[in-house]
Parts: sequence; structure tokens; C-alpha cells
Amino acid sequence: MSEQLTFATPGKDAIEPYLPSTTGGPTPADQKPFVTLTFATSLDSSLSLAPGVRTRLSGPESKAMTHYLRSRHDAILVGVSTLLADDPGLNCRIEGATSQPRPIVVDPHLRWTPSDSDKVLQLSRAAQGLAPFVLTGVAPADVPRESAAVLEAHGGRFIHVDPVPSVSSDGRMRFSWPSILEVLRANGLTSVMVEGGGRIINTLLHPDAQDLIDSVIVTIAPTWLGQGGVVVSPERVQDEEGIPVPAGRLSRVKWHSFGEDVVLCGTFNR
Amino acid sequence: MSEQLTFATPGKDAIEPYLPSTTGGPTPADQKPFVTLTFATSLDSSLSLAPGVRTRLSGPESKAMTHYLRSRHDAILVGVSTLLADDPGLNCRIEGATSQPRPIVVDPHLRWTPSDSDKVLQLSRAAQGLAPFVLTGVAPADVPRESAAVLEAHGGRFIHVDPVPSVSSDGRMRFSWPSILEVLRANGLTSVMVEGGGRIINTLLHPDAQDLIDSVIVTIAPTWLGQGGVVVSPERVQDEEGIPVPAGRLSRVKWHSFGEDVVLCGTFNR
Repeated sequence: MSEQLTFATPGKDAIEPYLPSTTGGPTPADQKPFVTLTFATSLDSSLSLAPGVRTRLSGPESKAMTHYLRSRHDAILVGVSTLLADDPGLNCRIEGATSQPRPIVVDPHLRWTPSDSDKVLQLSRAAQGLAPFVLTGVAPADVPRESAAVLEAHGGRFIHVDPVPSVSSDGRMRFSWPSILEVLRANGLTSVMVEGGGRIINTLLHPDAQDLIDSVIVTIAPTWLGQGGVVVSPERVQDEEGIPVPAGRLSRVKWHSFGEDVVLCGTFNR
Repeated sequence: MSEQLTFATPGKDAIEPYLPSTTGGPTPADQKPFVTLTFATSLDSSLSLAPGVRTRLSGPESKAMTHYLRSRHDAILVGVSTLLADDPGLNCRIEGATSQPRPIVVDPHLRWTPSDSDKVLQLSRAAQGLAPFVLTGVAPADVPRESAAVLEAHGGRFIHVDPVPSVSSDGRMRFSWPSILEVLRANGLTSVMVEGGGRIINTLLHPDAQDLIDSVIVTIAPTWLGQGGVVVSPERVQDEEGIPVPAGRLSRVKWHSFGEDVVLCGTFNR
């Protein structure tokens, strides 16, 4: 668990222009957090072979890059499905890291029941990471007391977020991205790295939300996973005449080879 | 139609190791043609926004590369859907090209009715390209005489290929890749560039066929097209226990930036 990673200078220099600034004064209280969207896919844009199946896609260089990126953000955000499927550490293991990012778990219906054996909580007890802030649509009075006690004992907490009024056809609550970012800012978090899973990424890539993204850093591995995987692809977009149009194009694009993978850096935010 | 393209040296040098050799003696008659698989996708692995919708994805550098690649192969192969949807020229417009590749159209059920106004036939009349060889499962006696006359007047022809015995659930005939390559070789074609569309590419990427591929050259544009596009993703593959496994991984991988796109070169054929 405490293996240390190093991320070398050529890679650092390549991604530096796409990261939140480390200089300058404090971020104004009303400014939205800097949002970096980052993930790794196959050539057929899959994050994994199937929901809940952790799939090793990218090489060791990409892993080190992910941990370096975590060292440069106040918060890292995942959907609850990723937490439940992968039991991830959600910490930063880069050599020389002086602080840990705050894990943010988007869990509208409180599917996660925190337990001492969860890796993310183990790491927080070992002072190798922070306990999550869990964003939920469940009313504070309805959050199980035991869950709140476990989370709070580790320094985490549940934070209520109002779901968007229109409930989707499956009855699931969801949050708007502006409301998520507002909650982060209100909790002193000025930058966030959005890591997954598929649903989280696809909603952030939707044209309604993509302007909130400051940087995109995508790793692509030279593998086809095949049909049926968890695919990154935003919802279809149509013009006024109902004709499909591209959902989004990056600007300020740079590609860098990292081992056998490629890393794409770009932005929606000109 | 006669716009000439140039493809500069750094790009040429980058892809040279992945192309059929230009030196050495004649290819033995029993040797399978050199197979290059090449196409351009979005980040979400789509060739186009929808079936039949031609979608401009890659930049001018990629277009020049495609035409340079055509100059280095005896044949270029597309499925009939691509021919019907795009009315493509299927010729080589690279500056200084001394010969034209033979278009191969995979058309098991003879959906194409050749006509003088088809771009590929116009170009062959203008001596700017060759008329197609059409691979079909329709018995020679059942090929419409008018279609055969139009195609043959341009120097093309219909070639009968035996379909694979197991008809798919939709009743469609299909050809095995070995039988396609055998027909090409029997017609003196020692190298083929497979360009699309989705069905053709996905069957060639299937583990049963992928060892026939000598080179893969994929262009990726920094765009998400969104769900519902024509996606490159081979059929799901499972191990003996029914657990999904990656459908294929490239070796000898190189990535090159081309304008805002990236070009991936690799092989399945170690």
C-alpha cells in the first residue's frame, strides 16, 4: 500500500500547462474550482471490460502520472459505482507529496456503507490519505447514524446536495455539475480531478457541462477491449434540425507517448 | 477531383517500418497479401456520426497520409456500405504516384449497381484510378448483365467468393478473411489496405482474423462524436470460463502527432 511512485521530468513538463496554477494568491471564494477530467481507455474507448470489472489498461508510466496529478489537486472525484467496484485507495503515492487530495464520492442514493475495512478508510487511519466527502441526495436525517459515525471518525463526512428536479426515467437522482462544484468550493476545495467512472465522465463531457472542464488528460492504451465494455462516449447531440453533430472537440491539443500508451492533453475552455 | 496531395518526410519515415517492402523479389504465389488495416476514429472510436453519414474527423495531414498509403498498396478494400454511403473515389491522389491501387468492394449480396456516374468509375474513365473488383457471393449466372457490362467496360469485374457456410442470424452471407485474401492473391494483388467501414474493420480485428493483419495504422482525432455512431470495436471475447478478456493488443507500437490528430502504428503479427 505504501509503494512510492516517481514521475519523471519530461512527462511533468508535458502536462504542466494543463494543471492548476501553483502560484498566485488565494482563489476568490466565488470562483469555480479548476476541473481536470482524467481517465484511461482502450482504443475502443472502454474504461473496463464490464461494469465492476477492474481492467488493467495503461502501463506503469500512466499510473505514476495519475498519482502525480492527484498531488496537484485539492480533490479527486469518483462515482459510487467505482468505489464499490474497485475498493480504490483514492490517495496520492507520488514520492515527496506533501499533502493528500480529498476524495469526493458522488453517491446520490447512499449506496456505500462505509466500513473500517474499506481501503480508502484504512489509508486515512494510516495517515496515507484522507477520508471521503460523500455527496448525497439523501436528507441528512435519513443518513444512517452508523455510516456517519464511521465516516466522521476518519475525518470524512456526508454532504447533502439537492438533486436536479427532473428525475430520470429509472427514478435515479442525479446532481448538476454546477451544484457539485459549488459544494466543493464551499468546502475550500479549489481544484478537482474527475477520475470516473463511465457515467460521471459521460455527463461531464455533455455539451451542457463540458465548458466547466479546464483540462482533459486522457491516456489511451493500444488495446481493443471489445464490445460490451464500460464506454466513454457522451450522450448524442443533435442540431436544431435533429441532425447528429459531434458532442465535443478539444482545443489546445497535445499528444505525448508514455511507454506504449499515448496521453492526450486538451481543453474545452479556450 | 484532381487536387494533388503531398505527404512530407517526417511522416513518411514514421510509417515506413509498417508498410509493405518496396524491395526484394516477387512475392511467392502462395504467400498471403500484406494486410494493412487503416482508418480514422474519434476518441469514442466512431468512424462516423451515424451509418451513411460521412463525418470529417481527421485533418489534412491524415488525408495526405491515407493517399500516400494507397500509393504503397496494390489494392484498397472497403465494404459495400461505405461505397453506397460515401460514393468515394478510391483512388490515389498523392503527388508523383506512378500507379493506382485496385479498389476491392466486398459486396456479398450485390447491393451495388454500378453506374457511369459513380465517382470511382468516373475516375477510372479519367485514368485517375482503377475500376473495382467486386467480391460477391451471388452466383456468376445471377449477376445482372447490365452491371457486369458497366463494370467490365471500365476494367473492373465481379469475382465470385464462396461465403462461409454458417449464415448469420440476419440471413446475410459473409466471407472469411482467408478466402478474401486468397482471391486477391490469385488476382496478382500482393498487398491490400483495408479502409472500412465498421463491419469490415470489426471482423478483421476479431481474434480469429487479426493474425492476418501485418500493420495497423489508426488516426485518432481529439473529438467525441457521442453515442450512436458507427463504432470500431471487435466482438466480445471470453476465456474458457466465460470471463471477458481483451479482444486484441498491438505490439511494436508507435504514436506520432499529426497536426491535432495522433497516428498509431502497430502490428498483431510479431
